[in-house]
Amino acid sequence: MQRDIFTADHEAFRGLVRDFIAREVVPHYEDWEKAGRLPRKIFEQLGSLGVMGLAIPEEYGGSGLDDYRYNVVLQEETARQLVTLGTVRTQLDVILPYFLAYADKEQRERWFPGLAAGTLLTAIAMTEPGTGSDLAGIRTTAVRDGDCYVVNGAKTFITGGLLADLVIVVARTSHDPDDRRAGLTLLVVEDGMPGFSRGRVLDKIGIKVQDTVELAFDDVRVPVANRLGEEGEAFSYLGHNLPQERMTVAVGSVAQAQAALDTTVAYVKDRMVFGKELSSFQNTKFELAAVAAEVEAAQAMLDRAVRELVEGRLSGADAAKVKLFCTEMQARAVDRCLQLFGGYGYMREYPIARLYADARITRIYAGTSEVMKVIIAKSLGL
Amino acid sequence: MQRDIFTADHEAFRGLVRDFIAREVVPHYEDWEKAGRLPRKIFEQLGSLGVMGLAIPEEYGGSGLDDYRYNVVLQEETARQLVTLGTVRTQLDVILPYFLAYADKEQRERWFPGLAAGTLLTAIAMTEPGTGSDLAGIRTTAVRDGDCYVVNGAKTFITGGLLADLVIVVARTSHDPDDRRAGLTLLVVEDGMPGFSRGRVLDKIGIKVQDTVELAFDDVRVPVANRLGEEGEAFSYLGHNLPQERMTVAVGSVAQAQAALDTTVAYVKDRMVFGKELSSFQNTKFELAAVAAEVEAAQAMLDRAVRELVEGRLSGADAAKVKLFCTEMQARAVDRCLQLFGGYGYMREYPIARLYADARITRIYAGTSEVMKVIIAKSLGL
Amino acid sequence: MQRDIFTADHEAFRGLVRDFIAREVVPHYEDWEKAGRLPRKIFEQLGSLGVMGLAIPEEYGGSGLDDYRYNVVLQEETARQLVTLGTVRTQLDVILPYFLAYADKEQRERWFPGLAAGTLLTAIAMTEPGTGSDLAGIRTTAVRDGDCYVVNGAKTFITGGLLADLVIVVARTSHDPDDRRAGLTLLVVEDGMPGFSRGRVLDKIGIKVQDTVELAFDDVRVPVANRLGEEGEAFSYLGHNLPQERMTVAVGSVAQAQAALDTTVAYVKDRMVFGKELSSFQNTKFELAAVAAEVEAAQAMLDRAVRELVEGRLSGADAAKVKLFCTEMQARAVDRCLQLFGGYGYMREYPIARLYADARITRIYAGTSEVMKVIIAKSLGL
Amino acid sequence: MQRDIFTADHEAFRGLVRDFIAREVVPHYEDWEKAGRLPRKIFEQLGSLGVMGLAIPEEYGGSGLDDYRYNVVLQEETARQLVTLGTVRTQLDVILPYFLAYADKEQRERWFPGLAAGTLLTAIAMTEPGTGSDLAGIRTTAVRDGDCYVVNGAKTFITGGLLADLVIVVARTSHDPDDRRAGLTLLVVEDGMPGFSRGRVLDKIGIKVQDTVELAFDDVRVPVANRLGEEGEAFSYLGHNLPQERMTVAVGSVAQAQAALDTTVAYVKDRMVFGKELSSFQNTKFELAAVAAEVEAAQAMLDRAVRELVEGRLSGADAAKVKLFCTEMQARAVDRCLQLFGGYGYMREYPIARLYADARITRIYAGTSEVMKVIIAKSLGL
Repeated sequence: MQRDIFTADHEAFRGLVRDFIAREVVPHYEDWEKAGRLPRKIFEQLGSLGVMGLAIPEEYGGSGLDDYRYNVVLQEETARQLVTLGTVRTQLDVILPYFLAYADKEQRERWFPGLAAGTLLTAIAMTEPGTGSDLAGIRTTAVRDGDCYVVNGAKTFITGGLLADLVIVVARTSHDPDDRRAGLTLLVVEDGMPGFSRGRVLDKIGIKVQDTVELAFDDVRVPVANRLGEEGEAFSYLGHNLPQERMTVAVGSVAQAQAALDTTVAYVKDRMVFGKELSSFQNTKFELAAVAAEVEAAQAMLDRAVRELVEGRLSGADAAKVKLFCTEMQARAVDRCLQLFGGYGYMREYPIARLYADARITRIYAGTSEVMKVIIAKSLGL
Repeated sequence: MQRDIFTADHEAFRGLVRDFIAREVVPHYEDWEKAGRLPRKIFEQLGSLGVMGLAIPEEYGGSGLDDYRYNVVLQEETARQLVTLGTVRTQLDVILPYFLAYADKEQRERWFPGLAAGTLLTAIAMTEPGTGSDLAGIRTTAVRDGDCYVVNGAKTFITGGLLADLVIVVARTSHDPDDRRAGLTLLVVEDGMPGFSRGRVLDKIGIKVQDTVELAFDDVRVPVANRLGEEGEAFSYLGHNLPQERMTVAVGSVAQAQAALDTTVAYVKDRMVFGKELSSFQNTKFELAAVAAEVEAAQAMLDRAVRELVEGRLSGADAAKVKLFCTEMQARAVDRCLQLFGGYGYMREYPIARLYADARITRIYAGTSEVMKVIIAKSLGL
Repeated sequence: MQRDIFTADHEAFRGLVRDFIAREVVPHYEDWEKAGRLPRKIFEQLGSLGVMGLAIPEEYGGSGLDDYRYNVVLQEETARQLVTLGTVRTQLDVILPYFLAYADKEQRERWFPGLAAGTLLTAIAMTEPGTGSDLAGIRTTAVRDGDCYVVNGAKTFITGGLLADLVIVVARTSHDPDDRRAGLTLLVVEDGMPGFSRGRVLDKIGIKVQDTVELAFDDVRVPVANRLGEEGEAFSYLGHNLPQERMTVAVGSVAQAQAALDTTVAYVKDRMVFGKELSSFQNTKFELAAVAAEVEAAQAMLDRAVRELVEGRLSGADAAKVKLFCTEMQARAVDRCLQLFGGYGYMREYPIARLYADARITRIYAGTSEVMKVIIAKSLGL
Repeated sequence: MQRDIFTADHEAFRGLVRDFIAREVVPHYEDWEKAGRLPRKIFEQLGSLGVMGLAIPEEYGGSGLDDYRYNVVLQEETARQLVTLGTVRTQLDVILPYFLAYADKEQRERWFPGLAAGTLLTAIAMTEPGTGSDLAGIRTTAVRDGDCYVVNGAKTFITGGLLADLVIVVARTSHDPDDRRAGLTLLVVEDGMPGFSRGRVLDKIGIKVQDTVELAFDDVRVPVANRLGEEGEAFSYLGHNLPQERMTVAVGSVAQAQAALDTTVAYVKDRMVFGKELSSFQNTKFELAAVAAEVEAAQAMLDRAVRELVEGRLSGADAAKVKLFCTEMQARAVDRCLQLFGGYGYMREYPIARLYADARITRIYAGTSEVMKVIIAKSLGL
């Protein structure tokens, strides 16, 4: 069915992005996968193109277009060409909103130009070994000492942690035995600060183009001037941004399921099996028809949610429904598509293999399917 | 998420319908189920209320509001109160469009007032023993003889056939060995015509409130004046109306899945198991959360399709995707909900049991899931 | 694959049963379904044939063959002919074991001849409105008064309750606040005892040939001589018999899934769709192949469990795994089979429709799938 | 439930293998994964231990124990320690049977001692680019020229191809337009033969410890003395061995699903989430209980099939059912288990991640699920 959330401006941006991906990403993608990360250069190119700064006010070198639909277009066009730009996506969809919402004037002047130019790379460090989705259980501490916080602790599963110039660290600045959620604060740790070190790069099943690392903080002195927002308010900040973080996973899931469908439809038309086109078997037709119906449902759901997000009225429970459904759908869809490739589907040179390996994380990160269900159930009064 | 397809007029109609269902349907529903049919009186009441004639031009006693969204509201409000009005739905959503599109002036004068008043009940007879979804295989014949067609053949699975005053019969008026689809014609057989008889009332798993019968035609002389549209054009007429027929099944599926969810949420809050509220078990929460996410996806997909249908641009393939997804979703949803009722879920006095028994037909009628997949696959170029 | 649990004796019994079902059950089955119960006569015929008394000692008119495999054969041959004998099954598989294990000499003399002859019909009354699978929550009371217990309470979902001459009632004879499981006792309430009444016959989705009723006990004086086993020991008795009760559901599920497969294979070979045999479509082949693989797995699992049950070493957790898997498999299998029948699958005159309607209860009774999971999880140390 | 297919000898062998895996495999496994292959040394060690030659006659240095149950034990004990020995398994389960069945006396003398000692590594080359599971479509040719065959063609997806000293190549020696299956012959190509080259090592989603390569044959002169069995008979040889090849995949699937269950049960008992043990959540319990029931069913099915295989009476259709069910079960089971690990499940340092990545191939190789369904359907007369 026809989508109805984009304007001519979004479509113009789509064309721009599509060309860029084809020219600057696709030819190098395999190398980046092997390297296990995106090169800094791609951030800078996207900066020059205006992508990194779309949502950043013009006075800091951006375009002042804080419209999530551009982010949607970026993910869609990336997926359409069977690649991903994981850490770019994280920076734009997940991390930048914290800077936009909570940076004070001085911080804006200090960081926004670099963010817009793609010369400042970022990460956000929430998860700790042993806490998972339970933010209230964070144990990294930040103790005030003069005009600094002294940060100690360890974080894990940090996307983009390897190259990040700025890491937003969620740390505990106080402890209230009656309210586990109180006392969390956002601090921006900078590359090179003494005591800040990067640990192992984790070897993942997929999403190989984005690095995922452990970070360690050993008496890192972070100036109070690097605090984002108010002390002790991080839990509510995180809660406020989570719907968009979840949406961004859902957007990727639907776009990648659609890409899986498209590449599989093309493959089965080309491939001969037992002397006939693979596309001529009823099983092939039925599997792909079932996938197409599911993708169509997910797209409609997602677009409705994007509209609500853009209009500032998407509830956390609805974002949870969207993430749950779209990521579960992606898993089913990509698995069915891969199967039609036979042995080729298991070989990473076929994009369907990467789509499969990449897909397994979406039911987990930004809140597992189980956490989504908890949120949805609460909204049902259960 | 918020739905965006209805206007204030639809919502006013919703209130009207809601009251009517509560007052005139719910108290009698069990009796009607036992009788295996709706009473004629309900059609007349709905006629008086203006529901039967909504889409019929004002000059014939209707309201001239040919807007499918009213039909959606009617199904939604019926489902919300855990009942169905199967043959009313068939008349309004499936059969009336043929009259509206193909009746000539004389036929309009003859039939529209009764259709609007709810005094003329209708059925459409496509399926034959042995043909199923394969309309091109129809073997009921209509041979021209003077100003009549002589109709011979048998039809089965005819919804509302028991009480129908007018039956639109799809019959073969000619046979083209090169084009199985050519030569089908719509003829309106009237109650009482010699040679027209009703056979067995079929005993179904569910949808007990709507009668499903076999019809027989033994040299029935049907005046040419009872032909709807042109001779030999029925296949294209049917093809044109099928998207709406499929949508109407999907609308019911989503509405009933939502009703199942609602009644189950209410039940689990009330029911104690092992000394605790059933709603407090994590399995209960997770099952219902998963159902809620699926219903939300289906609703978004459906609403997008309703809009396209109303605007006259819903493709057959998209209608097929919607029917496939929504009915499969309904099956999963209602099954999961029923399970939470334990033994009570199997007892027909609990609406969830009826919702379950009713649900099994939606993946079959108006084109099976398999037929939907054939249509969708074709649209993928497979 | 070849089954390996039966001896020549079992196979001889199989032939006997097969003939009996064909001659005495199949021709009358539709009538019994309409009546909502089995006739007493069928019990008597099975008594004459030696089936009712197989496990009963010879001195009381039985054969002394307490070998569960005969019960398996009985269910298999019944299912193979697309019928069920619900209350016979309950009597032999579920209730008789209590009599065999706990009846004292006097009770044996009083009841065993009638049980063997098929003239004494039985039921067991565990479930109460509001307790479901939670036996420890039973609230029906039995207060000792001289040589009687005075029983008060209500039971629901009682299979065979309508015709039962003897009802084993699980009642609370004492209350220990520290041990909810203590204080339950088995009492045999006889037809005609003052204060014992049968309530509504419940209208179910399926299993129409077996009556399911509510029972009420209003100051029913039950002689102490009608107590089965020791006072206060019922919970352990029930726990001991539950594995066989669950196995009997699993046996039926596998036999009925196999029957569904067989009847569907026959149907698709016969049925023409779009001018071709339905069996020639790849979807038909793949669906039935998938069903066949699942049935084969379930059969192997079941047979291993039957052997362990017969040898007295089947654990409760393993019985739970078998019930869980086999009933879930049945649900999937029968649903897929029905779909291949199209509209006919929804008509109760087609056995597949009855198999579908009947199947929905197996995931619920004798302990829901959820209860099975609780038991299995415990065995995993969770 | 208790398994019943092993004798004391098998259990003794189990202990031997278990120790060996713990000592010689587990400590090095990560290195081998990174290398993308097993070292030759492990074959030699298994040779010394007697494992490589178990089925080889004693006169050639083996033990003469041609009993597939030892192979089962080997896979089970490997999986239990969360590793795999892919190319060892292929050599013993898939390739050795061809040598045992078809090698003539001279070939036995030439190759069996090395096979038994683990100094001769092997591969079998069936699949070609473009043929997949369609053996009859093989296009590699072997043209007789004097006492040699001249082999030309390309093979792909060859497990163990990188190190193989002997490669059994399925080549076409003649072409019968009426019988696509006729004219295939098995030829043993040796390492170092001119014109035989190994192509790319394929980068797979998982099973990283076994190399999968492309092979090329460019005018390779293979002595007639290297032909296994009769010319033109390969199709029937392959057909004869396929049941065991499929069983070996199923054995691995069940063993790995069991291993996934075990490691997950251990993990959830240890892991704290939201301040509670992960094992204490009902969702955790229910997911693992469901997995346990499925594994139990698969194990029973598999054991029955192993017995039939060992006794030489396992049909191709039953082997297909077993492979279909066990591999589909594995996919479901491992996916559910992984989910309970949250983010850790996606990290390859956690064995569950490797189990997941490895699992995706089992529904594909040795005949896809679709091919299994074709075979099963044929056995149903469809």
